[in-house]
Amino acid sequence: MAVERMLRTPEAEQLLELTRELVDKELAPRAARDEEEGVFPRDLFRTLGAAGLLGLPYGEEHGGGGQPYEVYLQVVEELARGWLAVGLGVSVHTLSCYPLAAFGTDAQRAEHLPAMLGGDRLGAYCLSEASSGSDAAALTTRAGRDGDGYTVNGAKAWITHGGEADHYTLFARTGGPGADGISCFHVPAGVPGLSASAPERKMGMNSSTTAGVLFDGVRLGADARIGEEGKGFGIALASLDSGRLGIAACAVGVAQAALDTALAYSRERHQFGSAIGDFQGVGFMLADMATMIAASRELYLAAARRRDAGRDFTEQAAMAKLMATDTAMRVTTDAVQVLGGYGYTRDFPVERHMREAKVLQIVEGTNQVQRLVISRHLARRSRA
Amino acid sequence: MAVERMLRTPEAEQLLELTRELVDKELAPRAARDEEEGVFPRDLFRTLGAAGLLGLPYGEEHGGGGQPYEVYLQVVEELARGWLAVGLGVSVHTLSCYPLAAFGTDAQRAEHLPAMLGGDRLGAYCLSEASSGSDAAALTTRAGRDGDGYTVNGAKAWITHGGEADHYTLFARTGGPGADGISCFHVPAGVPGLSASAPERKMGMNSSTTAGVLFDGVRLGADARIGEEGKGFGIALASLDSGRLGIAACAVGVAQAALDTALAYSRERHQFGSAIGDFQGVGFMLADMATMIAASRELYLAAARRRDAGRDFTEQAAMAKLMATDTAMRVTTDAVQVLGGYGYTRDFPVERHMREAKVLQIVEGTNQVQRLVISRHLARRSRA
Amino acid sequence: MAVERMLRTPEAEQLLELTRELVDKELAPRAARDEEEGVFPRDLFRTLGAAGLLGLPYGEEHGGGGQPYEVYLQVVEELARGWLAVGLGVSVHTLSCYPLAAFGTDAQRAEHLPAMLGGDRLGAYCLSEASSGSDAAALTTRAGRDGDGYTVNGAKAWITHGGEADHYTLFARTGGPGADGISCFHVPAGVPGLSASAPERKMGMNSSTTAGVLFDGVRLGADARIGEEGKGFGIALASLDSGRLGIAACAVGVAQAALDTALAYSRERHQFGSAIGDFQGVGFMLADMATMIAASRELYLAAARRRDAGRDFTEQAAMAKLMATDTAMRVTTDAVQVLGGYGYTRDFPVERHMREAKVLQIVEGTNQVQRLVISRHLARRSRA
Amino acid sequence: MAVERMLRTPEAEQLLELTRELVDKELAPRAARDEEEGVFPRDLFRTLGAAGLLGLPYGEEHGGGGQPYEVYLQVVEELARGWLAVGLGVSVHTLSCYPLAAFGTDAQRAEHLPAMLGGDRLGAYCLSEASSGSDAAALTTRAGRDGDGYTVNGAKAWITHGGEADHYTLFARTGGPGADGISCFHVPAGVPGLSASAPERKMGMNSSTTAGVLFDGVRLGADARIGEEGKGFGIALASLDSGRLGIAACAVGVAQAALDTALAYSRERHQFGSAIGDFQGVGFMLADMATMIAASRELYLAAARRRDAGRDFTEQAAMAKLMATDTAMRVTTDAVQVLGGYGYTRDFPVERHMREAKVLQIVEGTNQVQRLVISRHLARRSRA
Repeated sequence: MAVERMLRTPEAEQLLELTRELVDKELAPRAARDEEEGVFPRDLFRTLGAAGLLGLPYGEEHGGGGQPYEVYLQVVEELARGWLAVGLGVSVHTLSCYPLAAFGTDAQRAEHLPAMLGGDRLGAYCLSEASSGSDAAALTTRAGRDGDGYTVNGAKAWITHGGEADHYTLFARTGGPGADGISCFHVPAGVPGLSASAPERKMGMNSSTTAGVLFDGVRLGADARIGEEGKGFGIALASLDSGRLGIAACAVGVAQAALDTALAYSRERHQFGSAIGDFQGVGFMLADMATMIAASRELYLAAARRRDAGRDFTEQAAMAKLMATDTAMRVTTDAVQVLGGYGYTRDFPVERHMREAKVLQIVEGTNQVQRLVISRHLARRSRA
Repeated sequence: MAVERMLRTPEAEQLLELTRELVDKELAPRAARDEEEGVFPRDLFRTLGAAGLLGLPYGEEHGGGGQPYEVYLQVVEELARGWLAVGLGVSVHTLSCYPLAAFGTDAQRAEHLPAMLGGDRLGAYCLSEASSGSDAAALTTRAGRDGDGYTVNGAKAWITHGGEADHYTLFARTGGPGADGISCFHVPAGVPGLSASAPERKMGMNSSTTAGVLFDGVRLGADARIGEEGKGFGIALASLDSGRLGIAACAVGVAQAALDTALAYSRERHQFGSAIGDFQGVGFMLADMATMIAASRELYLAAARRRDAGRDFTEQAAMAKLMATDTAMRVTTDAVQVLGGYGYTRDFPVERHMREAKVLQIVEGTNQVQRLVISRHLARRSRA
Repeated sequence: MAVERMLRTPEAEQLLELTRELVDKELAPRAARDEEEGVFPRDLFRTLGAAGLLGLPYGEEHGGGGQPYEVYLQVVEELARGWLAVGLGVSVHTLSCYPLAAFGTDAQRAEHLPAMLGGDRLGAYCLSEASSGSDAAALTTRAGRDGDGYTVNGAKAWITHGGEADHYTLFARTGGPGADGISCFHVPAGVPGLSASAPERKMGMNSSTTAGVLFDGVRLGADARIGEEGKGFGIALASLDSGRLGIAACAVGVAQAALDTALAYSRERHQFGSAIGDFQGVGFMLADMATMIAASRELYLAAARRRDAGRDFTEQAAMAKLMATDTAMRVTTDAVQVLGGYGYTRDFPVERHMREAKVLQIVEGTNQVQRLVISRHLARRSRA
Repeated sequence: MAVERMLRTPEAEQLLELTRELVDKELAPRAARDEEEGVFPRDLFRTLGAAGLLGLPYGEEHGGGGQPYEVYLQVVEELARGWLAVGLGVSVHTLSCYPLAAFGTDAQRAEHLPAMLGGDRLGAYCLSEASSGSDAAALTTRAGRDGDGYTVNGAKAWITHGGEADHYTLFARTGGPGADGISCFHVPAGVPGLSASAPERKMGMNSSTTAGVLFDGVRLGADARIGEEGKGFGIALASLDSGRLGIAACAVGVAQAALDTALAYSRERHQFGSAIGDFQGVGFMLADMATMIAASRELYLAAARRRDAGRDFTEQAAMAKLMATDTAMRVTTDAVQVLGGYGYTRDFPVERHMREAKVLQIVEGTNQVQRLVISRHLARRSRA
């Protein structure tokens, strides 16, 4: 059953309606099999791009949708409800466009954004490295000055769309150690010296390629740099705030999908002469699941409205990511429980949802990192 | 530190500002002592009435504030942050006015509402009985036909403001057993035959009188009945949806107060050479507390916006009440923990907050009843 | 690191030592690959049988180990620590032997037990059906009187070792509806009319075959019946109490394995200049995991000692199963979290542990059924 | 209903039986009123001493009971079930005797122990100070050399039995900063210069006096020192391990008392035509409560058996304290919930149990300190 939303414009209503149709017709029928076979659904991103869903929160002048984050995120939620690999893919792609859209020059935007927002060029976001996960500022990939431009050497890890993307938004060290020595770059996939390692073999999300991206003497022109030299880490952090909202929306979508399946099953399955959903042991579990999902959704929507209103939303994004992904983990685990033995089989989607939920507690800042962000903001506000 | 809110009108900003001032000047300085001595702060309700805070969500034509529930509830939250007995008292009073405001005749409204909304007449809501708590439709207090009017006999239990109120909104049985036999009445405090039993001795909330209200041959005219005969239970349920949002707002206020105290303490208290808030063991706990509070707040605000938009909000109100009060219980318990031994003493307010939080999981439908309401709505929507 | 145990006999010490050796040499090196390829490790059960580990809690006169349950379960825990499919397989096999060992005639025991306890014949336990899971007494598989013996028709579902076992302990209806109409049978795998459906495709435990077992006119002699006619459900319940302890021990083993991996990783992985285990955010998580594991272990050991002392242990077995499997689910989920992105890959065993843990909350009575069992015992004791 | 225990000796059975009788006849009838009036039940400790319950784990040669910790702790649990102030008082008293019993000279033991173990002299344990709670080694109370003996100056805080005790086991600084500069002393209550501040005003446990103890030029002879100079902190830590087991036992007692009340109420209270305990919403809650209590009990018993066997039990004591007190907090909070409005009143003991439970998460090392202890042991074992 469709989630009842409070949308403020007819355009938003239509976007959500369109999204639900795409989910039902294009995503849902393929998700289970493609996940099992590890197929990356590159074609679906083209479909989404053609439908205008790959650049929703960016300006219409470059082909974006000009939508508030509040609307964009609900589209991501609906996509993730149908297939997380796609919902997360859209979120990551959107994240990969952010530095260029927000900090790029007019020339850079004019040159690159239309293809990025239209679905022709799928993006990846290259920040993490094997030994700098939570401690992102410790990254060691080096972009050394080389004439007018740069030469990049190093290895990025855990890159969603690694080896599949058409462009990589790269963070590399142009200066000394620490956050001040990092710059941001736009790197097309085809440049010599760029390659991807074999994809990770994961617990789930097998349709969402995760791979290392290797930079072996990759030459970049000066115009590949986004923003000033040494300002890359600030750009990364600003991107991450938005990216975390995307993850929160994905988590709500996965959790909602699991609840929908569990709820339907709880009405159909009978034991001891009643639908199992009529036993409080199951009914109360469903009530808790629905409540946590609703709270997670309102939390990311409120953070999105702050973003849309131009307010600081770092703390709110961290809260939304933390709450929504912990909720997704618990809700999907309980959804399998409602289905019992059936839930443990691949005949129902809840076991997939449970495997998907786990990654959301980890990506774009583990939930431990989110707690760190929140506690620091609390301390700061307390001093104020 | 003040909670940063997204308010939509200057009037709402001013109301919240006014409320915070009243809290700081009038409520906070008295709360600890009055609670300890069990003083009912009747005068404060007059002050609030004079300031226009006792009829906020009702029409201006009868002296109400004409405010959306979204704003009214945030006022309740701020009051509860300073002193739950007052915040809950305002919520209960507002609840007691609802049947007359929503289902009364023009004449009834014109006669009673101005005094009720202006602070001259404080209200109580008489639904529960000793043996019908969660199963409210099983109530046995009888309003028998007596000429034009009714004679009421029976005993109500757990009545907030029992013995202190100026009017009682009464639910009594005018017909046969079950929900269909119940009617609603407006009863002034001074009628012969109405009395209150000795107040309950409680774990907390000692400034908020809870007492039995006895009806011993109380005679009521026909014009005391609100709405049609036999329609009382529907009125009660409709009131409860709104009342539950009030409890949710109260719970967020209490939890916020406890977090504020714990946060301030965590910056001041040093152990092992650091502020204890800088240890992740405490910092992560504060982050979780803040996140759950924010989620609870957004959940009640979203439910309020549904109410303000004229949509059904029964399920959402139940979710908000459930989540906010479970959050308040956990947050206040953890806030005492952050303060350690100090938190367990009456020198800090967190032990009071913890005792206060517990009652919120119980009143206006235990959290088990909320889960029942939610699971039934889920089942119904699933069938649709 | 080996769990430090309080064992009471040198024999028990040696058994545990032997088990740990087998785990390290025979189980651990194969588990990851065999699980990935879905290989059923039939040979390992022969190895365990040869080592005397397949009949530990049964009498030495039939080739059993004559060990108390307290010791047997710790062996199961250690096996499950290395590979759940094997630990659970031993528990299921032991369960399948119980009716014959406890309720069989001397002749039945002499004929069958030596091969069953020695590893030559692996067992399965056929109680569940597609529409009678939690409500086991509603089973419909029929064993109709046929001359001296019986003819069995029906379909069993969710049978561990279904299609791989050498004997099936079957519960079928010989009388009217309800618990009183059920009898227990010992069925060799080779009888005409018995077949297994295709194995379930599951979230995990792919080396542990789960399949339907079909009985299509299977003829059994009178000597196939274990215990009296109509007493089968009581036998099933008695078996289940013991079987639940086996699941509890398995759950502790899986949780311990996940904790061991997480702990080792937390010492090796450095971020922000320290081992991540030295941050309280991770350290406290590990402490909670270790505490819940220790509590689960003591709970199943205490229940086992009650069983060994001849006391009723139904309630205690349900508690142990509930607590240990909920613990395993939470601990394995958190273990993946400690490893972050690495934990989500198949390069570390924790993602497998997490997938394995889920099934334990479901089998041999879902944890909802355990709560039902416990709450009924509480009610009964309360009345006493 | 009495908890069914697995005791190993007839003597232990009799001790527990005796304890239950004392609880029913002497403790339970007075607890509610004395707590409300803040009466310290000094006479009850004399009764317990006369019954042989004040020196259970110490040697019979000095008047102790010669009982293993496994038995002693179950006595403490039963006492706390009746009245936490008494159970905790016995635990604290036993703790105060430990340094002298374990590290004192024969002369010191012969002189002091008989009166301490017999009930004539009640003890207190003086370690904490206002600014050194979790960081106990930072204490500043000074015992300066003065001729043969010492002069003590400083202020101890949070002392159970402060101002009521007959002797104080004191930890004071005889050397430089840090753990190495601390020594342990036995101080009779009557010495000049020793006084107690006004008792703390607490959330609960009003019959258990908590006060500051001031040392203003208190002169002690050399024979007042227990153990070597500079070895006091080691003695304190060794005492704390045992003390934590006492707190764990107290927590189980309080939780059991709350469960017993909730269970009885759940059978008597009817709503919607059934005993509320027959609804899974309540029944499952009771099942979880009972399970966590059973697990907590087995955890402290297992730790006690390690202590009785002469093994290290620091980690196990910390786990037992952590789990049992978190359980007590949750169980008592839920017990109030089961009773609904009634639970929130002083007419039932559960609101008192809930207020009592909170202090147990704080005393003798907050549960954050326990997690620190456990995580350090895990790290150490991992390296081994």
